[in-house]
Amino acid sequence: MKKVVGFGDYLLRLNPMGYLKFIQSPNWEANFTGAEANVCVSLSNMGVKTDFVCKLPKNEIARCAISALDKYRVGTDFIARGGDRIGLFYVEKGASQRPSRVIYDRMNSSFINSSSDDYNWNEIFKDAGFFHFTGITPALDPNVANLCVEALKKAKEHGITVSCDLNYRKNLWTTEQAKATMENLLKYVDVLIANEEDAEKVLGISAPDTDVTQGKLSKDGYIYVADQICKKYDINKVAITLRQSISASDNNWSGLLYTEGQAYFSKEYSVHLVDRVGGGDSFGAGLIYAIGHEFSNQDCIEYAVAASCLKQTMEWDVNLSTVDEILTLMSGDGSGRVQR
Amino acid sequence: MKKVVGFGDYLLRLNPMGYLKFIQSPNWEANFTGAEANVCVSLSNMGVKTDFVCKLPKNEIARCAISALDKYRVGTDFIARGGDRIGLFYVEKGASQRPSRVIYDRMNSSFINSSSDDYNWNEIFKDAGFFHFTGITPALDPNVANLCVEALKKAKEHGITVSCDLNYRKNLWTTEQAKATMENLLKYVDVLIANEEDAEKVLGISAPDTDVTQGKLSKDGYIYVADQICKKYDINKVAITLRQSISASDNNWSGLLYTEGQAYFSKEYSVHLVDRVGGGDSFGAGLIYAIGHEFSNQDCIEYAVAASCLKQTMEWDVNLSTVDEILTLMSGDGSGRVQR
Amino acid sequence: MKKVVGFGDYLLRLNPMGYLKFIQSPNWEANFTGAEANVCVSLSNMGVKTDFVCKLPKNEIARCAISALDKYRVGTDFIARGGDRIGLFYVEKGASQRPSRVIYDRMNSSFINSSSDDYNWNEIFKDAGFFHFTGITPALDPNVANLCVEALKKAKEHGITVSCDLNYRKNLWTTEQAKATMENLLKYVDVLIANEEDAEKVLGISAPDTDVTQGKLSKDGYIYVADQICKKYDINKVAITLRQSISASDNNWSGLLYTEGQAYFSKEYSVHLVDRVGGGDSFGAGLIYAIGHEFSNQDCIEYAVAASCLKQTMEWDVNLSTVDEILTLMSGDGSGRVQR
Amino acid sequence: MKKVVGFGDYLLRLNPMGYLKFIQSPNWEANFTGAEANVCVSLSNMGVKTDFVCKLPKNEIARCAISALDKYRVGTDFIARGGDRIGLFYVEKGASQRPSRVIYDRMNSSFINSSSDDYNWNEIFKDAGFFHFTGITPALDPNVANLCVEALKKAKEHGITVSCDLNYRKNLWTTEQAKATMENLLKYVDVLIANEEDAEKVLGISAPDTDVTQGKLSKDGYIYVADQICKKYDINKVAITLRQSISASDNNWSGLLYTEGQAYFSKEYSVHLVDRVGGGDSFGAGLIYAIGHEFSNQDCIEYAVAASCLKQTMEWDVNLSTVDEILTLMSGDGSGRVQR
Amino acid sequence: MKKVVGFGDYLLRLNPMGYLKFIQSPNWEANFTGAEANVCVSLSNMGVKTDFVCKLPKNEIARCAISALDKYRVGTDFIARGGDRIGLFYVEKGASQRPSRVIYDRMNSSFINSSSDDYNWNEIFKDAGFFHFTGITPALDPNVANLCVEALKKAKEHGITVSCDLNYRKNLWTTEQAKATMENLLKYVDVLIANEEDAEKVLGISAPDTDVTQGKLSKDGYIYVADQICKKYDINKVAITLRQSISASDNNWSGLLYTEGQAYFSKEYSVHLVDRVGGGDSFGAGLIYAIGHEFSNQDCIEYAVAASCLKQTMEWDVNLSTVDEILTLMSGDGSGRVQR
Amino acid sequence: MKKVVGFGDYLLRLNPMGYLKFIQSPNWEANFTGAEANVCVSLSNMGVKTDFVCKLPKNEIARCAISALDKYRVGTDFIARGGDRIGLFYVEKGASQRPSRVIYDRMNSSFINSSSDDYNWNEIFKDAGFFHFTGITPALDPNVANLCVEALKKAKEHGITVSCDLNYRKNLWTTEQAKATMENLLKYVDVLIANEEDAEKVLGISAPDTDVTQGKLSKDGYIYVADQICKKYDINKVAITLRQSISASDNNWSGLLYTEGQAYFSKEYSVHLVDRVGGGDSFGAGLIYAIGHEFSNQDCIEYAVAASCLKQTMEWDVNLSTVDEILTLMSGDGSGRVQR
Repeated sequence: MKKVVGFGDYLLRLNPMGYLKFIQSPNWEANFTGAEANVCVSLSNMGVKTDFVCKLPKNEIARCAISALDKYRVGTDFIARGGDRIGLFYVEKGASQRPSRVIYDRMNSSFINSSSDDYNWNEIFKDAGFFHFTGITPALDPNVANLCVEALKKAKEHGITVSCDLNYRKNLWTTEQAKATMENLLKYVDVLIANEEDAEKVLGISAPDTDVTQGKLSKDGYIYVADQICKKYDINKVAITLRQSISASDNNWSGLLYTEGQAYFSKEYSVHLVDRVGGGDSFGAGLIYAIGHEFSNQDCIEYAVAASCLKQTMEWDVNLSTVDEILTLMSGDGSGRVQR
Repeated sequence: MKKVVGFGDYLLRLNPMGYLKFIQSPNWEANFTGAEANVCVSLSNMGVKTDFVCKLPKNEIARCAISALDKYRVGTDFIARGGDRIGLFYVEKGASQRPSRVIYDRMNSSFINSSSDDYNWNEIFKDAGFFHFTGITPALDPNVANLCVEALKKAKEHGITVSCDLNYRKNLWTTEQAKATMENLLKYVDVLIANEEDAEKVLGISAPDTDVTQGKLSKDGYIYVADQICKKYDINKVAITLRQSISASDNNWSGLLYTEGQAYFSKEYSVHLVDRVGGGDSFGAGLIYAIGHEFSNQDCIEYAVAASCLKQTMEWDVNLSTVDEILTLMSGDGSGRVQR
Repeated sequence: MKKVVGFGDYLLRLNPMGYLKFIQSPNWEANFTGAEANVCVSLSNMGVKTDFVCKLPKNEIARCAISALDKYRVGTDFIARGGDRIGLFYVEKGASQRPSRVIYDRMNSSFINSSSDDYNWNEIFKDAGFFHFTGITPALDPNVANLCVEALKKAKEHGITVSCDLNYRKNLWTTEQAKATMENLLKYVDVLIANEEDAEKVLGISAPDTDVTQGKLSKDGYIYVADQICKKYDINKVAITLRQSISASDNNWSGLLYTEGQAYFSKEYSVHLVDRVGGGDSFGAGLIYAIGHEFSNQDCIEYAVAASCLKQTMEWDVNLSTVDEILTLMSGDGSGRVQR
Repeated sequence: MKKVVGFGDYLLRLNPMGYLKFIQSPNWEANFTGAEANVCVSLSNMGVKTDFVCKLPKNEIARCAISALDKYRVGTDFIARGGDRIGLFYVEKGASQRPSRVIYDRMNSSFINSSSDDYNWNEIFKDAGFFHFTGITPALDPNVANLCVEALKKAKEHGITVSCDLNYRKNLWTTEQAKATMENLLKYVDVLIANEEDAEKVLGISAPDTDVTQGKLSKDGYIYVADQICKKYDINKVAITLRQSISASDNNWSGLLYTEGQAYFSKEYSVHLVDRVGGGDSFGAGLIYAIGHEFSNQDCIEYAVAASCLKQTMEWDVNLSTVDEILTLMSGDGSGRVQR
Repeated sequence: MKKVVGFGDYLLRLNPMGYLKFIQSPNWEANFTGAEANVCVSLSNMGVKTDFVCKLPKNEIARCAISALDKYRVGTDFIARGGDRIGLFYVEKGASQRPSRVIYDRMNSSFINSSSDDYNWNEIFKDAGFFHFTGITPALDPNVANLCVEALKKAKEHGITVSCDLNYRKNLWTTEQAKATMENLLKYVDVLIANEEDAEKVLGISAPDTDVTQGKLSKDGYIYVADQICKKYDINKVAITLRQSISASDNNWSGLLYTEGQAYFSKEYSVHLVDRVGGGDSFGAGLIYAIGHEFSNQDCIEYAVAASCLKQTMEWDVNLSTVDEILTLMSGDGSGRVQR
Repeated sequence: MKKVVGFGDYLLRLNPMGYLKFIQSPNWEANFTGAEANVCVSLSNMGVKTDFVCKLPKNEIARCAISALDKYRVGTDFIARGGDRIGLFYVEKGASQRPSRVIYDRMNSSFINSSSDDYNWNEIFKDAGFFHFTGITPALDPNVANLCVEALKKAKEHGITVSCDLNYRKNLWTTEQAKATMENLLKYVDVLIANEEDAEKVLGISAPDTDVTQGKLSKDGYIYVADQICKKYDINKVAITLRQSISASDNNWSGLLYTEGQAYFSKEYSVHLVDRVGGGDSFGAGLIYAIGHEFSNQDCIEYAVAASCLKQTMEWDVNLSTVDEILTLMSGDGSGRVQR
């Protein structure tokens, strides 16, 4: 399949060791993360050519960040360099009744203050087939929202398929701001990924009988939401991730693909979580891979869910699974027997 | 609320890394622990002023111990210095069918050999509202049991509420010794914390149909035990922790508060354990906080159980939760969703 | 009981830290493992005298390997030294739906290239009561299969009880090769250990209605398999391990001992896995211990299963449990309560 | 001696493990640092009462920061809470010919954006005897420079001794800006600490024959610089740290105190560095301690140099030495014999 | 400058933590190394385009190996995949009088068993300007020596500059074998790197008065050796690394470039070693960079020595220095002052 | 050579990681140490048969302790089990001007409270050729001093050579007590090891012009001391370790053997220390080995000093060097070149 381009900010992720709290842990694991970058890494591990587009400062920390992408062969040639800083993402892993907690310190990043001149879209989109972004990117700053519009227009000029993960973050903007901005961007979107909370908060579309914190999920409700989104925004494919959070240690995980009036539900996995951060991003990557390889609709959602199920059994934010590993899980062997 | 004073020994806790056994682990985690100190740390993290009273040697290890309290703003000005050694507590964390194992090496500690002159109770109890001790303290040595009596008498002179956690330890004394000593001390106690094993072993009061190792729990049985304790020892409030040990990895956890002839059971949590040591101490701290803030009886037990549930999702012996985090769990969200 | 002799290769085991994948982990845990060596270590921890027989190179890594056995008092005086290398075993621990993965790099090891002259069986078998080997050893190379025959003949001359764990490894040989070689060796075997996959792949005997990856298990099917093995190969005792793999994190674990036409099933444990590698070896060690101490048939299988259940709650490949710990679990307390 | 108050920003310090570079190290050590806070910690470890004044955000990372001060009993009651973020300080430790490297990401910190209302100086200075700040603080932002002026005026009103470490940072401001601002602040300063580079860059006063990178040091040159500073700014005591950097692993370290026209040089230590960051801060703390205890002029500089020599044999930014340890080194035993 | 191609085997390097011996260290650092790969990584960190050519197995460990090159943007597209195994290199770091020790387990690697078909030299050498190999590669096996000849012939057809580091390894071949093979390969070599031991052992050319273990070094002797090599093998540039090993912790390090009858000695660095492995490789990379950028002869040797000096102040096998860092050291600042 | 028997206490050694202080280090390295046990481990690593005699409690920590000896094949069959506790030894590693510090918590150990019945000397001394103890053992308690006398008498009955390391510890007894006790024991001693401090403090014999803290050493002074000891106590061989402590990071190290009126000085090593604890014990082991193998007097002291030099380049308390490694250093190669 053709190259996938991701566009968004890239952050230093710091977390304490294991289940320690920050105040207990003298050493912190240092990784790099960003919703769109995570999608690129996942796809690259599946053998897909990718380019991640961003702006990062000229310092040693940004050098580490870029090398974290190079390590997985994500294209980094279009990452602009300059500006003041790389953003930060602190995360403390929860367990059982204790939720994971995250703190962002990402304002004034090089990316947020970047300009049109930093991105040569005509060059970037040469040979590209997909463009992926998330609702986090326009939420960062109106400047970045404008950069998104520019990128999307260029993507359409190049005949590129656009995927978007709504990814609503309440600490970045209000639902009103989100709605105004995202509705403008959805015009360019072919494949939309959301969960029920995103749909309600950003688009104002909610499943009648779902109560997130109670973990009640209704199939009909999700079909209703997906159908409304497709119709209202003229979107071809809507994928909804269905997470039933039993505790911070155990989640049920499945998904729905809705396209051309038909709903395709995946099987559901009971996941004993290793690290759930990045679950949504790996779902997006799986979906893009499956669409790019023209899987059937049912297989598209099965592949995306199996990929993101595996991600959640790994530490940190990216899915390191190969296509074979995902297909094996998808085709039925979730028994976890040792692979000798 | 007014200052809480804790009195007891304070030990170096050594454990292997993760689920390793001592013989496998070349590095051991070094922390400090003590039932009453843990209560003080928990309360301090809830914003309550505390003082921990003890005696520790004049060496670098004791300096570390004190700084472990200072770190959480527990008052350490009344810790006497001198004597020979700090006690030791070795613990190996179990998993599934493998129980956790503990080894004590705590005899001849500075605290055990301390004397009345080391503690200026009139100074210590100035501005204090609560005094907390556990059955471990008098069990250490008759000398320490006498120090407890002195402290309790002074506490009563200062009109201070006294709480006690029975905490029977069979390797420290016999049930006969425990009964004789504790019945003498219970005269001064306002709030008593126990589990079913403590009640049976120390006070000789047992629920007719409970078999601890089989994990059978009967509500009526617990009410019976609590009622007997209240009546026999003229105690205002008895709180019982109800632990159903499914395995070393999974426990069900709830509690009962019995006061003025009424029983208040909390909701029950299925806890996937991170570290259960200190669960009882954090329950005591939660109960003291709730009583000190005049929560309703039902809220008292709910708060104490939620607090100690959260403790067991953390490593090591103390509860680092804030009041907000405990109230959130108590008010219903145990779904473990990421807090962004 | 008399000395147990194990014979097989011994490898360096490398694994990433915790649940990390190799590509994420800059430090790898280094241990040493081998099916027969693991049996010796388990037995030595139960107080049984053992000797492990092997050949290892003359270098510092092999020095570490031998010291890993000495540490647990396994006899190492009969380990020959020389040759080119110690084999390698890379393992990545799975979780939930992600299976554990292993990679072997064990060809051309000192053991595989060893010769009859390296082993003085008359000396080795002096005072020995048991000889244990697994199907991995003859699978390594025809040369090693011949060494096994030599050892087995000598064992029989010394009136030693021979136990064998079929342990089929599909990456080492074909089912045809396995069958031809193992049927020849089974002549000397008194106690055979297998799982349903081994029996089917090596001996061509399968339970009619069992589908391993689906986790369906039938008691009658296992009895049928065991009975067939006993009859066909004139073996006194056949033990079958029954693993129901719910996921890479949770397994149900039990076993069957079949002897003199009678089947003895153990109780079943729901194990929340810490590390399942070495589970089979610790089962073998438990069985040998129980037989050597003339436990009843029912107790033999209960002891073997309890021992191997505990192993799976520990990190790495060997069972560090003492006899007391195993008896405690076997006699009913799987509640995981803290042992103070 | 009376309480010492420090005022400045407080940062999260991140560094790779050991001599690794950031790009090699998946875990980073997380500590907290700030020139004035480090002085307070050093003094607190010498038994001096201190208060550190700053502003930090209301989040878990700032909670860790404050607990890092509480741990050493530095007063934290006057740390204001609010604003957006805690600043960052990345440091990579050098060795031999490879210099240590630091990266700052500290703009827009809660402290930099703080206001007069955040600091109740009349309350803070009650019972205080010393006020300490460094040239880093006014360099951060004109707003902060103004806050310094306010604090200094109040300090003088309370009759407090003011010490200042010039600490020129070329990435924070130009020499022109530094000179203009610092000359205004020096009016309030009683004790000035500087190195030869600070004096030249900030005050334009240089020793005629010193070339820092060549490591040439002239006693007369330093006396000349100190004398000029005293005269020009009417300062009572000027202390100059003399660092001869042989390599990133080995430094010679000594100091000069100049007061009332007399120069007092300390003995020189050849330090095999463990971590030289914070060396200057521990010198300042030592000097304040010695002045506060009315040591002789010679002993003042000997104590300050011995204290900071010991700091550089420890990891991270603060001096953990006790008064006894410093006096022992100062009185001649630098042989490093084991203290049993 | 044009692309540099390196050709050789690539190994898993395992070492204990810090100064521990293998037998003391339960965790080992896992990195990847190979003389030619290290040269490529060094050059890539200087901004030079590189391709590393090798053959590695199709397994997860080889995936890690390749990602270790990708991380630093070394080209890995021409690494063939297949065969049995990746070689191993165990190293234990020495200190003071204790020498570092290495153990190789590299036979039967995928590379050693690779064939001409695995390398498409016409494709590989497109746009390349330099080809680098070391004496280790032909030493591995006659098959690999033949592959070297093929590569060298192709390199010459493409007009590529060939550099070779003699790198004699006595455990891989005899001096006779080395001489016969290397003299044949030297026909194609333009730039030869050696130390005095290599020259003597491989080429039979020795400086009259040098005794390696005594650390005596004579400038004239080195000039004599270099001159003999140039004349005998018609080589344009000979570079000799001069290591004076004071102990495993401290070395003096310098170099000589000899070309067109002229000798250029670099300045000498007293290096307090962090890890000396890879010192020679980073020297080679520095030399190639300097030649490729047409530095003066004196600057060529200064740059190569400064680069490799810095490498030895870092952990593991590759030089992570940037061109700026090397130029700074080369131009005189070896004082190790903190770079703020 | 014949078996060496060591007799003394065995302790848990806890130290922070690297150069951290206890208060900075959340994980502590856990090892086991004891002067006589260290001698046994060193000798066992040289291939000498040994037995370590002690008493340790029946718990998991003591199991670790014994396995730490088994790991190096020291005989542990004569370690009695029972009593209350294993002693503790806390050590913080110094650097440069910062001395290492140690804290003992060893009173009431199982060994100190052991009795004659715990040691079957006739059995232990069967086949033994050497008995080694240090002045630490009798210093622990008069009870233990009596056990020493019993052992020494039995040793003499069995014609065993007795070696003793004076090892004066000022925190265990006064010089008066030491003198009284040790002079009684020296009657049985054939080989005495001491440093100048021991000789002065215990025996009251001092070199006229030596000032330990100033690091001044005089050859004649040492000869004088050794000669006095030999004459006064009728001892055959006196060995004196000569440590010149330049700093906690660098020591000069050599030794003197005095026998039959002749003095043999070894060469001196400048040691860049990794861990100097256990240096004296490894000297003793080296000396016993050399005497047992009938080395010349000069070689005896060279071997002992080379062995203990190497120990000090390793972490923790025991010498892991092989005989070959020691002979290599002794014969002149201290250049620290990599051993490939």
